[in-house]
Amino acid sequence: MTTSWVEGAAGSLFDVDNLPFGVFSRGGEEPRVGVRIGEHVLDVAPVAAAEMLDVHHVFEERSLNPLMAEGPQVWQSLRTWLTGLLTEEAERDLVEPHLVPLAEVTLHLPVEVADYVDFYASLDHASNVGKMFRPDAEPLLPNWRHLPVGYHGRAGTVVASGADVVRPQGQRKPPSEDVPTFGPSVRLDIEAELGFVVGTPSTLGERVPVPGFADHVFGLVGLNDWSARDIQAWEYVPLGPFLGKSFATSISHWVTPLAALDAAWVDLPGQDPEPLPYLTEGSPRGLDIEVEVELNGDVVARPPYRTMYWSPAQMLAHLTVNGASLRTGDLFASGTISGPEPDQRGSFLELSWGGQEPFGEGRTFLEDGDTVTLRYTAPGTAGGRISLGDVTGTILPAR
Amino acid sequence: MTTSWVEGAAGSLFDVDNLPFGVFSRGGEEPRVGVRIGEHVLDVAPVAAAEMLDVHHVFEERSLNPLMAEGPQVWQSLRTWLTGLLTEEAERDLVEPHLVPLAEVTLHLPVEVADYVDFYASLDHASNVGKMFRPDAEPLLPNWRHLPVGYHGRAGTVVASGADVVRPQGQRKPPSEDVPTFGPSVRLDIEAELGFVVGTPSTLGERVPVPGFADHVFGLVGLNDWSARDIQAWEYVPLGPFLGKSFATSISHWVTPLAALDAAWVDLPGQDPEPLPYLTEGSPRGLDIEVEVELNGDVVARPPYRTMYWSPAQMLAHLTVNGASLRTGDLFASGTISGPEPDQRGSFLELSWGGQEPFGEGRTFLEDGDTVTLRYTAPGTAGGRISLGDVTGTILPAR
Repeated sequence: MTTSWVEGAAGSLFDVDNLPFGVFSRGGEEPRVGVRIGEHVLDVAPVAAAEMLDVHHVFEERSLNPLMAEGPQVWQSLRTWLTGLLTEEAERDLVEPHLVPLAEVTLHLPVEVADYVDFYASLDHASNVGKMFRPDAEPLLPNWRHLPVGYHGRAGTVVASGADVVRPQGQRKPPSEDVPTFGPSVRLDIEAELGFVVGTPSTLGERVPVPGFADHVFGLVGLNDWSARDIQAWEYVPLGPFLGKSFATSISHWVTPLAALDAAWVDLPGQDPEPLPYLTEGSPRGLDIEVEVELNGDVVARPPYRTMYWSPAQMLAHLTVNGASLRTGDLFASGTISGPEPDQRGSFLELSWGGQEPFGEGRTFLEDGDTVTLRYTAPGTAGGRISLGDVTGTILPAR
Repeated sequence: MTTSWVEGAAGSLFDVDNLPFGVFSRGGEEPRVGVRIGEHVLDVAPVAAAEMLDVHHVFEERSLNPLMAEGPQVWQSLRTWLTGLLTEEAERDLVEPHLVPLAEVTLHLPVEVADYVDFYASLDHASNVGKMFRPDAEPLLPNWRHLPVGYHGRAGTVVASGADVVRPQGQRKPPSEDVPTFGPSVRLDIEAELGFVVGTPSTLGERVPVPGFADHVFGLVGLNDWSARDIQAWEYVPLGPFLGKSFATSISHWVTPLAALDAAWVDLPGQDPEPLPYLTEGSPRGLDIEVEVELNGDVVARPPYRTMYWSPAQMLAHLTVNGASLRTGDLFASGTISGPEPDQRGSFLELSWGGQEPFGEGRTFLEDGDTVTLRYTAPGTAGGRISLGDVTGTILPAR
């Protein structure tokens, strides 16, 4: 592995060991697929057409879905080809005219999301929530160590990083009241998560085993599962979270290909009891991805993804074990990433311990005008680090 | 309103007061939009092209989504035009060559489902489930009479009537066991429901009030929310049903337009306490739709939709009250339809009272090879009845 000839890319968080895909537009042009290198976006379509790549049409699309549907062999071939373009001086004359400075582009939602599933895979997060809501009982529910608990979220309200979030309204009933009232959420929160995007579909009735993960998953996104805790608390029994979550879920502009994470795999912290065989085959592993949670420019938490209990491949195997099929564009997320330390918690609910212990500059839940940015980095294959992009959003007052 | 000149249509469940839309194909041709009349499908595209309708292209598509996206004015214009074609003798020479006998076509999934939401809107169903699972407590949970409880299901596993259903496998832990085991579901069930299909999208951050129902909802489908009760019971706390539901949801081939139900609106049975204003504005009303549940050819239940507690418009208003946007193809369903009488229960769970009281010919849950058919009828605008189509499926053994 060498470094890129693109100015500013060498040694940066977006050198050729990264090469995430996104969707961009410039001026009044139609959105199309781009690859990030340093502080530029490579407009891939004209280069692929000039080199007569047989899949060049996938770069002319408004989402990554057609590219993702091509499957892992094509993904690998394209990565090799792109690496050559961006490292070999001989390619510079061909490629350089198609490098667009980031400042000149608009970035869009990269994926047309099919189904969105959210898990609950952090032991520390699930334990914290259990301690807060059921102080006199065992923090973990009986099923938690046996299966990755998850549920379906709203795919149609997944938005790209940068989109403003309107404070949701809804029913909430504080324990002190007898009847619910209607109004803007007063316990608006974030959930710092990691998302996994499915490229290759599967067949209804057939499961994807743990070792099938890399055959189906195209890449990773940063994800903020905005949550209205007061709406959620009143509605969620017995069918789970609904309006407390469905108003917005933000993902990063860039989808980092699985191949860029080759150096980030680590052992899981350990699972006790040992899960059932469909979850253990093929030695599931975790990922050493660091997350920074920034509130109005100040870092308020650093959740470590390596501390998660359930692995990405276990989540996918569980999601399909009943025969549920995958579609290109399916998105599944980890649930809130929280580590064992207080400053490693990935939600304001936990950072403020249910609103009882203000953190940072005396904060509990989100206020109008607050901007939250999640930043994700991982070890790259060249010895440095890569960025998985940022996920940012600003809270607008309720309408 | 007169009747159709199409042979066999006059006075049938599919006369011109019905005119549901579906997607069909013949031989090796591409699937396209059709309208059912009697025992025929009208191949609309060539007739619309011959009459130079400006929206004729929507009939050449593989799903109803482009048609549904056109909005209520176009839906109404097309209904008037189709009624004229199928009632006026003068149109017969133009239309008759494009009538295809049902026996010669393959019917497909009519809608590309965007998000799928399932509610829990029957008081009798929720009460029955509460009595079975919490025998010593108040059957209804505290939130149930204040809001239509609902959750997101898996859109990618919505299948058309006629699709076989492979018995799902998964984790289940009977109360008598200490640890979960893995295997085929032994409590496989149906849920007889009604589904509502969204045509007109809405804007993120803006709610759809109760009176906005007919501006957004294109039509209705019959829906069977296949459920693995043992998988569901072990997984659903605290995030709701997931793999117990996500393996298959069957819908009818035909989407009945809202206009065909004009004579079916009835008052709701009554709501106590009065819900919050966002759920009561515009006098929400129910629908007098009869459902028959047939197991291997025998009718085992007749759930009446008019007994539902929450109205279709209230479900839609609740779904969007937090600003969640609608997309063309969104599907939301009522939850199991159960009436107050034992033979009006829309699930085997209730018909067999949790498996304790076998019904029919000694049945509790579904066995391999069982075929379940749900049939839906309603009062038509011409004084007779219309069919909303059937939803059928046969259970295949676990793989």
